[in-house]
Amino acid sequence: MKPIAYASNQRKEVEDDQWGAIVTTITLAEELPDSAIASIDSFSHLEVVFYFHKVKEDKIIQGARHPRNNKDYPLTGIFAQRGKNRPNRIGLTTVELLEVEGRSMIVKGLDCIDGTPILDIKPVMEEFLPKSSLKQPDWTRDVMRKYWDTAQ
Amino acid sequence: MKPIAYASNQRKEVEDDQWGAIVTTITLAEELPDSAIASIDSFSHLEVVFYFHKVKEDKIIQGARHPRNNKDYPLTGIFAQRGKNRPNRIGLTTVELLEVEGRSMIVKGLDCIDGTPILDIKPVMEEFLPKSSLKQPDWTRDVMRKYWDTAQ
Repeated sequence: MKPIAYASNQRKEVEDDQWGAIVTTITLAEELPDSAIASIDSFSHLEVVFYFHKVKEDKIIQGARHPRNNKDYPLTGIFAQRGKNRPNRIGLTTVELLEVEGRSMIVKGLDCIDGTPILDIKPVMEEFLPKSSLKQPDWTRDVMRKYWDTAQ
Repeated sequence: MKPIAYASNQRKEVEDDQWGAIVTTITLAEELPDSAIASIDSFSHLEVVFYFHKVKEDKIIQGARHPRNNKDYPLTGIFAQRGKNRPNRIGLTTVELLEVEGRSMIVKGLDCIDGTPILDIKPVMEEFLPKSSLKQPDWTRDVMRKYWDTAQ
């Protein structure tokens, strides 16, 4: 796999929370033509697949852990949480597309740091959203409480 | 990247439509412990990141094409559509988790064929869904018309 784009924003270090106000510029990798994002502004939202490039091999969890290493949360399989220390180090977030400028997309709500390699971008279509109501455990509500805060 | 699981279902060949009734069993790769999916049944929906392993290198689109090669649809960048012939060949779909049996997850709504390698699984949380209303172009409505049909 090769990066198809790179993220650029003001967050230089990984932090748990306060991703709400972060605006990120995603710029296509040099090898790709401008036309790779032709008409992308006909969509309001994108799914961004990225690579947690700062995660060291020896930090990857193969089994279960307490989310955020907080023992108040239940022991949970790595594929039942969204933490970054996961096999294949794939990140995935739905963002709002604010603007397209040439080979760049300005997006809001991307929770990755400056310099992150992007592996794929897909347009969000209503038909791919969940078709029935969601169930999620209580610990996720607690973890997400300040995640999208707009304070910096 | 290495597969973390494999998909098994009754669809042996790629088809454009009628994915609605397909039920898929996703089974963890041998190297991973059972605990990698501990408590995953506390979620109703999962995001499944998979690899379009049947797509040949020379079929990959780097720029734009008409979705489904239909000239009635506008010329659209590969990252402004969800077609499989894309750089890095990453597929991504939100599925409903029906049941967990040991090292396997039974899911509905996964649009990949039998034997597909899975690269990641993440639980769906409401806080990661789009936070504002969606905009998408008319051609997507046409393309998606029969996509989730339950006829076989």
